[in-house]
Amino acid sequence: MASCSCCAIPTTPYNPPVLAKEPAAPLVNTSIPGPQSKALSERMGKWQDARHVILFQDADKSIGNYIVDADGNALLDVYCHISSLPFGYNNPEIIETVSQPSVYKHLAQRPAIGVMPTTEWPDMLDATFTKILPHPSLNCVFTSHTGSDANEFAFKTACMYKMQKIRCGGTITNPTENPFSAEDMASCMKNMPPGSPDFAILSFEGAFHGRTFGCLSTTRSKAIHKLDIPAFNWPTAPFPKLKYPLEKFVAENKAEEERCLAALEKTLAADKRVAAVIIEPIQGEGGDRHASPAFFQGIRTLTKKYDVLFIVDEVQTGFYTTGHLWAHQAWGLDCPPDMVTFSKKCQAAGFFYGKHLLPSHPYRNFNTWMGDPIRTVVLRRIVELAENPAVLENVKITGKFILDGLFALQAKYPIISATRGVGTFCAFDFDTVDHRNQFVAAMKQKGVNCGGCGEQSVRLRPSLIFTPKHAAIFLHTADQVLASLH
Amino acid sequence: MASCSCCAIPTTPYNPPVLAKEPAAPLVNTSIPGPQSKALSERMGKWQDARHVILFQDADKSIGNYIVDADGNALLDVYCHISSLPFGYNNPEIIETVSQPSVYKHLAQRPAIGVMPTTEWPDMLDATFTKILPHPSLNCVFTSHTGSDANEFAFKTACMYKMQKIRCGGTITNPTENPFSAEDMASCMKNMPPGSPDFAILSFEGAFHGRTFGCLSTTRSKAIHKLDIPAFNWPTAPFPKLKYPLEKFVAENKAEEERCLAALEKTLAADKRVAAVIIEPIQGEGGDRHASPAFFQGIRTLTKKYDVLFIVDEVQTGFYTTGHLWAHQAWGLDCPPDMVTFSKKCQAAGFFYGKHLLPSHPYRNFNTWMGDPIRTVVLRRIVELAENPAVLENVKITGKFILDGLFALQAKYPIISATRGVGTFCAFDFDTVDHRNQFVAAMKQKGVNCGGCGEQSVRLRPSLIFTPKHAAIFLHTADQVLASLH
Repeated sequence: MASCSCCAIPTTPYNPPVLAKEPAAPLVNTSIPGPQSKALSERMGKWQDARHVILFQDADKSIGNYIVDADGNALLDVYCHISSLPFGYNNPEIIETVSQPSVYKHLAQRPAIGVMPTTEWPDMLDATFTKILPHPSLNCVFTSHTGSDANEFAFKTACMYKMQKIRCGGTITNPTENPFSAEDMASCMKNMPPGSPDFAILSFEGAFHGRTFGCLSTTRSKAIHKLDIPAFNWPTAPFPKLKYPLEKFVAENKAEEERCLAALEKTLAADKRVAAVIIEPIQGEGGDRHASPAFFQGIRTLTKKYDVLFIVDEVQTGFYTTGHLWAHQAWGLDCPPDMVTFSKKCQAAGFFYGKHLLPSHPYRNFNTWMGDPIRTVVLRRIVELAENPAVLENVKITGKFILDGLFALQAKYPIISATRGVGTFCAFDFDTVDHRNQFVAAMKQKGVNCGGCGEQSVRLRPSLIFTPKHAAIFLHTADQVLASLH
Repeated sequence: MASCSCCAIPTTPYNPPVLAKEPAAPLVNTSIPGPQSKALSERMGKWQDARHVILFQDADKSIGNYIVDADGNALLDVYCHISSLPFGYNNPEIIETVSQPSVYKHLAQRPAIGVMPTTEWPDMLDATFTKILPHPSLNCVFTSHTGSDANEFAFKTACMYKMQKIRCGGTITNPTENPFSAEDMASCMKNMPPGSPDFAILSFEGAFHGRTFGCLSTTRSKAIHKLDIPAFNWPTAPFPKLKYPLEKFVAENKAEEERCLAALEKTLAADKRVAAVIIEPIQGEGGDRHASPAFFQGIRTLTKKYDVLFIVDEVQTGFYTTGHLWAHQAWGLDCPPDMVTFSKKCQAAGFFYGKHLLPSHPYRNFNTWMGDPIRTVVLRRIVELAENPAVLENVKITGKFILDGLFALQAKYPIISATRGVGTFCAFDFDTVDHRNQFVAAMKQKGVNCGGCGEQSVRLRPSLIFTPKHAAIFLHTADQVLASLH
């Protein structure tokens, strides 16, 4: 890694045009939220829940890594709309694409992609998804609208596949040879087995997979998301509680992962309802909890052994942010996952799957719009931009610089610990929730927007154009804030 | 109603500029799907389920009420992407809006509306939703992505409200006075009561409310949608099976509706799990089944009596197509529904609710994007266009002309029956499924795209710019096709 000659900030090969348009540094003139944001929040609050609003962004003035708010404050954005901004604000390389007259048609009307797609659609699928397949065998894509509905339809796919296998006596054959029975057809209309089977999706303690009814039954991160909502009685397995840095606690962490795998195996052996196991490569909302490739390899082995599908939820970890296109590609699996769901940084959503998982009949995984082509136009451009190898190189260089800096801060300030991360997907813990909340608030007041996760963690979710120069601003500001909290 | 002097086609006060750009009549040169559509379908099929694709649309050439396909065929579109096209294809009045540079920012990045909305967002809410409130008291809006997630979050709202009432001993007070118990918090993390209560959403036989796990548990239209997917054990009530025309069978229909209301009351009295009742004003996917205002008034009375919420699913019936902004506004309710969900013709999705239904705490009904501002930009324009009173007048004139024409065809061809409709939301039945399917296929081949629903019905779902002139083409073509089937 090359370093610039005058300071310790490493150089990066990635210097997209948008960076030249950014302010040189954060600028904060008011409290955050400032008076304009507060006034807007009051107006929004008449219509919808504005209690979680942090600030109102001036979406015309925000640029690159800087979010400009209604009060003219410019914050370095290290959180990026809950990890969903791939190439920063108002990136001219994306605006060039979305300002073409060829996109008007995608805005003037939404097609029902499942029945009357546009003539461009197969080209869009080819040009977009060929380049981001998680594996050559995961070469089909279900396009949807959000990470939640991607997961919901992946769950449905797993349940249909499991039942079709049962119907065929173990090996899927032509569905016309093993049709739905009259009992299946009649009972499902009453939401009763066998037509509506008591199948289950197994998730991990601390997991976050979304908030619709199916997803929420697999989400296990925080009570506030789940309270008062009916849920399926679906099983969980423990997610390893590792000690960081992983390299230092190898033996203890290995034992912890083996404990969790043993618990998973026990459940899979006992609970024959399980159609699929779903996991995040790094638990985000649950507190940036990591596990080793060996743990995920173990899950792949167990899911094969017990004949259940393995779904990897890359909604937050996907699209280069961890230093791999898809985070699970770091696991070195012999056999890929069965489905991979995506959203957020892709600005579109869906899941990859192998053709053998296509439902037996049409209209089983279907809806009116089946995704939004305008968001695929954007994804296609994002995928093109990410083809520049400097993008991934920058994530690696910047990520290492962030981690080195956080380790230095951790050595200096005992109130923080457990620095961890891959790529720029980094986090650290505070000794108390209060300290964490004070830190996030004080950072904002100094012009740096970062986010909390888990009980007392801070997570960094910068864009792919976040460079060491930006990381240095984050680290310098964190140093100041930590000194004030200390 | 004025008629043109040379024929029986009534005149309409609505003549938007897009109509001048339409072809004079359908044009069909190939079989449908033609060779280009078939080739594209094969390419799409490598990526995703293309078994339901009817044709590929040339989204540049499609205009007004005419969809132009990959083979250059121009079909009069009476189905409009499953009822989701409000003002036709490439309407210049919408393109004028979406081609403004001010929209680029909404395409270049998606904001997390719940935490960092744009400064325009409160203006967009005011300008868009003020004009389409179902009732002055339903003055809050949850913005989402699809009809399904609108319904899912409406269900969650109902469950949270029910439990909060229980927690407060019947009357909702400040949530800090009746906080979640430790048992609530702990049990919900295990998907078990009391934290994950065994609450239910009651829907009607034949209903369609979407395909995600919560919605699918309320969908009761067809087995193919539900087979092999786990479902909540939620109750149903019968939807009236009325005889058409409604005016002719008043006594029988009244008795049938009373039977259904009695069954609903029996279930509500017995099943204390019910948090909400959801219904479509006209069952679309279930076969265009209507009911009278008295029936819906009865539901409102019973839901009040048994203290459960009343959700009206206007995903398909909403936005002027029935001759009212929202179809349920024809019921003359003393007290409005508690929530109204929307999508499709709005080109965006969500639900209206009263402020008292706002969840007790933030982040309980939340997700990363909370809707897509670009689709609200489009909805805002659509709402402006619909302010022209000629739009609604046209729906009424065209709808009456369609119904009169269908009654004439029904008198001429005994294989069709049960002509029914409000506004242009019209349907009729065939004597057999085969005849229905032959009709839909033959209409397509003659350049008219309409859709099936239920077991053996045909449904018309034209845009709001569908005029008597277009209806005459539909009716004339239907006459030809019916003669050939007869």
